[in-house]
Amino acid sequence: MSQSLRLGIAGLGTVGAGVVKIVRQKATLLEERAGRPVTISAVSARNRDKDRGVNLSSYAWEDDPVKLATRDDVDVFVELMGGSDGPAKAATEAALKAGKDVVTANKALLAHHGQALAELAEANDCVLRFEAGVAGGIPIIKSLTEGLAGNDVERVMGVMNGTCNYILTRMEDAGLSYEEAFKEADGLGYLEADPNLDVGGIDAGHKLSLLSAIAFGTQVNFDAVELEGIGCVSIEDIRQAADMGYRIKLLGVARMTGRGLEQSMTPCLVPASSPLGQLAGGTNMVVVEGDQVGQVVLRGAGAGEGPTASAVMGDVMDIARGLRMTTFGKPASKLVPAQPANSTPPAPYYLRLELSDKPGAMAKIASVLGDAGVSIHRMRQYDHAADTAPVLIVTHKTTRSSLTEALTGMAETGVVSGQPVALRIEEL
Amino acid sequence: MSQSLRLGIAGLGTVGAGVVKIVRQKATLLEERAGRPVTISAVSARNRDKDRGVNLSSYAWEDDPVKLATRDDVDVFVELMGGSDGPAKAATEAALKAGKDVVTANKALLAHHGQALAELAEANDCVLRFEAGVAGGIPIIKSLTEGLAGNDVERVMGVMNGTCNYILTRMEDAGLSYEEAFKEADGLGYLEADPNLDVGGIDAGHKLSLLSAIAFGTQVNFDAVELEGIGCVSIEDIRQAADMGYRIKLLGVARMTGRGLEQSMTPCLVPASSPLGQLAGGTNMVVVEGDQVGQVVLRGAGAGEGPTASAVMGDVMDIARGLRMTTFGKPASKLVPAQPANSTPPAPYYLRLELSDKPGAMAKIASVLGDAGVSIHRMRQYDHAADTAPVLIVTHKTTRSSLTEALTGMAETGVVSGQPVALRIEEL
Repeated sequence: MSQSLRLGIAGLGTVGAGVVKIVRQKATLLEERAGRPVTISAVSARNRDKDRGVNLSSYAWEDDPVKLATRDDVDVFVELMGGSDGPAKAATEAALKAGKDVVTANKALLAHHGQALAELAEANDCVLRFEAGVAGGIPIIKSLTEGLAGNDVERVMGVMNGTCNYILTRMEDAGLSYEEAFKEADGLGYLEADPNLDVGGIDAGHKLSLLSAIAFGTQVNFDAVELEGIGCVSIEDIRQAADMGYRIKLLGVARMTGRGLEQSMTPCLVPASSPLGQLAGGTNMVVVEGDQVGQVVLRGAGAGEGPTASAVMGDVMDIARGLRMTTFGKPASKLVPAQPANSTPPAPYYLRLELSDKPGAMAKIASVLGDAGVSIHRMRQYDHAADTAPVLIVTHKTTRSSLTEALTGMAETGVVSGQPVALRIEEL
Repeated sequence: MSQSLRLGIAGLGTVGAGVVKIVRQKATLLEERAGRPVTISAVSARNRDKDRGVNLSSYAWEDDPVKLATRDDVDVFVELMGGSDGPAKAATEAALKAGKDVVTANKALLAHHGQALAELAEANDCVLRFEAGVAGGIPIIKSLTEGLAGNDVERVMGVMNGTCNYILTRMEDAGLSYEEAFKEADGLGYLEADPNLDVGGIDAGHKLSLLSAIAFGTQVNFDAVELEGIGCVSIEDIRQAADMGYRIKLLGVARMTGRGLEQSMTPCLVPASSPLGQLAGGTNMVVVEGDQVGQVVLRGAGAGEGPTASAVMGDVMDIARGLRMTTFGKPASKLVPAQPANSTPPAPYYLRLELSDKPGAMAKIASVLGDAGVSIHRMRQYDHAADTAPVLIVTHKTTRSSLTEALTGMAETGVVSGQPVALRIEEL
């Protein structure tokens, strides 16, 4: 085991540069911990000339990541390019076929091709790990696949997109509109090139689909994740939720129900006093509920050079130490296709709508709810200036389909203007 | 890898019975996850006839745990007896010498003999793991040794004795005195047979010493842990702390300083709004600060059948999967003796004392503090009935030795009655 573990790193953005720094600066520590040196043989990126604040001169350079991935002097291909297809996929496949282990931070790649890649890895006796792909520096993949392996997982929840949580926190703390908070996050460089990956919940949905696969032993099925972005959340909703002791989070929930696997990444109300409710700013949190362990909460930075590089190095160190885990906690052949639940279990909902200021309007709404079988827990109309009045309703537990029926009915009454806001309340 | 991994379990209390249940009830799940069956060959406990709510008839019985540990049909010796010496130590040593892997929940054993046992394990090519020994179901050992292996750890903190946190929480929430809350915890069966293990901070100190060893690559040195129990904390202190935005926790802190390794398990004030401050009841929390990852927080149940058995099974599953880690994250020979810091770094302190209600008394205290170089951040004397007046002081950052000098000086003034309370304020 004293032979060095040789990395080939593709992608030298923030995270790639961070990994290079750790390998250079902590050589002795890593060698002591792993029992063998960890070194870099070669690197690859789009632009060779860019200054990345780290000395790359002692590493071979490859313009083509596929070439990097299959070099004889590379034991582990570290994929930090991103993107669900294209070079990242091609190079990862090439690496596995060439018998190289792969460490990646690429949730999109695994959310779309996780099953095929896990099978390819196992067919070639390779390891494919992705700790950095979910919740940044939080060692959630390791905790779920290994530490909690004695549990039947009942529910996995998480706030896993720091940008969204930053926007929602700023709206609450500074009274900003969604648009203002979005602009601020953009100015700070927090948003992806395609911001819909963040605020549309896609990035967080990718992550949730990976956690689901591990938690429930199912094949990754990102397409079955119910996705809703945070664009529908207004400062008014945040204030009303706070008033009732809740906070609004872009919350991922995965649970196995009698009707199949539920996966949702949607804005939800969570109790303000719960760990998820207390999570402010760009921090991430994952909550795992196991039948033995009860509730375990992990919290930490979800992005950034250090935290993400830390997660990459966790996987690299496992390989260096000879700790060879399956990608999703079971051999890929044992992962079963998940029957999507197609409906979330009954839950209380928060509704906010603009009601015409006419006699009988409120009665019409109440009766539409009643007809749909949705029972009202709290309802209030509050102060208003215009000719419509905001009305806030918290329902008792109801099914999503009853709620949809009620929302359709409301639209037909002619007393509701605009689109009502409907957010699930997730009890913790 | 299809050969079954055969356990020998010594100790059939709550945790032992919990492990047996998991192995019996989740046989298929465990086999799928590990790629091989996990079975039990033999068990051992003091009383063979006790009903433990689980069928043991298919397992061989050994009265002597040493015999169990060395049976030919045992691959992993699972030590759940407890106790730093005696049968637990003898059987663990026997197992390792016989080439058996060992999984234990025994923090006392490892706090006292961790280095020798880790060396023995490695000399025999065996694994010795103890996830269940620290913070119950929270996968902190795995996270620290593996997931965060790319970090230089800067500080590890934790609330790791649920009983103490329960007592402190009940004092605050129900306005109970320490004695009343202690009695309540005792009635609920939360206390060890020797309650000083809990309330004296010894149990939590054992755990901290194990985390220190992993975090800083040092040999376990429990004797160097500064220990102070929660018996000195009064409801008055809890109220005053709350008033200033703090909560009192039995807090473990380990950090490597220029003066050596600091390890303390003492009642501290922490910001009420921090994750540690928000931790109520019997729950545990560990905070790791790494140079790359920043702050990672793990929270979960610190005791109980399910959570502790979950942690034991995490270690067992690692072994079943062929994931063979060193005990403390480095080969035992690479762990270095830790130079104890012998003094905590400068910190603000909370002081509460009873002052004689005489003219000039306050001036005497202020001048003693000044002479010792302790500068006052906040100071107030509050309403009182008797002929002494409670005085509350929050200092600026000061060293423990300056504080001790001030406390000695105060005793000599003759205007302080009784023993002042002095608690460190730990910033997060």
